[in-house]
Amino acid sequence: MLKEYIKGRLPAIDEALDRFLPLTNYPSHIFEAMRYSVFAGGKRLRPILLMAAAEAVGKSGSAFINVACGMEMIHTYSLIHDDLPAMDNDDLRRGKPTNHKVFGEAVAILAGDGLLTEAFKVMLAQPNVAPEILVTVVGEIAAAAGAMGMVGGQTIDLMAEGKTIDGETLKRMHQAKTGALFKAAIRSGARLAGASGVKLAALTEYAEQFGLAFQITDDILDVVGVEEKIGKPLGSDVKNNKVTYVSLYSLEGAKKMADEAVDRAINALDDFGDEATILRDFVHYLVNRDS
Amino acid sequence: MLKEYIKGRLPAIDEALDRFLPLTNYPSHIFEAMRYSVFAGGKRLRPILLMAAAEAVGKSGSAFINVACGMEMIHTYSLIHDDLPAMDNDDLRRGKPTNHKVFGEAVAILAGDGLLTEAFKVMLAQPNVAPEILVTVVGEIAAAAGAMGMVGGQTIDLMAEGKTIDGETLKRMHQAKTGALFKAAIRSGARLAGASGVKLAALTEYAEQFGLAFQITDDILDVVGVEEKIGKPLGSDVKNNKVTYVSLYSLEGAKKMADEAVDRAINALDDFGDEATILRDFVHYLVNRDS
Repeated sequence: MLKEYIKGRLPAIDEALDRFLPLTNYPSHIFEAMRYSVFAGGKRLRPILLMAAAEAVGKSGSAFINVACGMEMIHTYSLIHDDLPAMDNDDLRRGKPTNHKVFGEAVAILAGDGLLTEAFKVMLAQPNVAPEILVTVVGEIAAAAGAMGMVGGQTIDLMAEGKTIDGETLKRMHQAKTGALFKAAIRSGARLAGASGVKLAALTEYAEQFGLAFQITDDILDVVGVEEKIGKPLGSDVKNNKVTYVSLYSLEGAKKMADEAVDRAINALDDFGDEATILRDFVHYLVNRDS
Repeated sequence: MLKEYIKGRLPAIDEALDRFLPLTNYPSHIFEAMRYSVFAGGKRLRPILLMAAAEAVGKSGSAFINVACGMEMIHTYSLIHDDLPAMDNDDLRRGKPTNHKVFGEAVAILAGDGLLTEAFKVMLAQPNVAPEILVTVVGEIAAAAGAMGMVGGQTIDLMAEGKTIDGETLKRMHQAKTGALFKAAIRSGARLAGASGVKLAALTEYAEQFGLAFQITDDILDVVGVEEKIGKPLGSDVKNNKVTYVSLYSLEGAKKMADEAVDRAINALDDFGDEATILRDFVHYLVNRDS
């Protein structure tokens, strides 16, 4: 069911991303570089979550394709910049050479900048939404991606290198670094579809637990995952002396925490019926994934 | 008159930027890095132009302080990234160490990313404007800063390194790299203040000529400027073999082109009265500046 759901939505997302980043634009070189990473095999988790959240509120998710794709562009820019030599210095991403390995460092920096900026252009051109809703939704996405969100989390991560951090700081870092954008995707889908009050609060709780489960699972996969599927060497966290949920709480402890987060995510959807089936399936799929 | 005008608006701009980027936010380190460059002595040209354009349409420019400051934040992010080792590799900016010299490359990349993202957050929180106007104005700013605007111009510039380019390409590069953001600042001020039709078209023409005059003057100053005032060594364009308006058209030719652009900018304001005095003074000041 979930696989079919994802499979059904991917073509529309890819078609829209293709349309939003046409190679015919001038200068084509920067569009080439942006497209390289956008079409490098990402799972489109954020746009699909946004659509699924809209559908849990009873609207068609594909109506909000602009905001959905904007979130994918923001996610992609963050990967390009994270991989840079001055940051994580990664040569491979999903088994392919990273952006700066193909286009050089300068163009990779610009490709990231370009994707982040184009994301806002694309999101603000979202049709079918009252402007006052769009303004608050895109503003919330900016906050989630900004200096107290994703960029802030990346900063905390950088500063924690080689240091011991406690569980509270680890959680706070991940909430900012990846959790905030997941939460924004789910809340945006819900708000664009007209949710407010109790429903929005429930989906917000779901989103927070989803993000937590996602990150713990990420740490677990770095230890027990399948290298070919992840597309990068396993054990990089241990090698880089990184504090993770596994290093802090052991593999068993981390698995238990992930399961608890999944339960809380599912419970948050108690007042929803079948329209939230995809969101429920999603969080189960998430902790059972192998990449 | 112009000097007093600028002096009168600077405190409100700086106060707002201080408010939009509070050091008390978590993590404070990224705010420290962003603030370092935001408060490094910029002339605040873009926010002041935005305010002056709003005033030419009969509204108080300070009503639009969010969008005005957002433009300064976008401009500042672009300087931080331009200065990076992989880009222009500059150690000094306005006589001070560049962001990556103080905070390191990784944090400088993040500070740029953070400023760009926070800019959209701040702009979308602009009060006193109908949401449908705000959506189109901020969307236009994103387009001007994006892959066909500022980021695109930077890409053209990178790819032109060590190559000969013609006058048409030089103009196109500058239109994208700096012109687009000036134009967006002036048009945003006008649209936020309610301008449309003939008035908006006139201010758009003014903006385009302003941008052209600005860039030609920049090239001239690199040859005949006062080093201490510019804050970086003169002659860097010649040293770096850069094609400029001076190298293509001679110093005299470039001065003539700048004067002609100024005339066209002034003529574009023919239908405006005293309310556009500041905009007129601005373009004169621009070509007679020494830094």
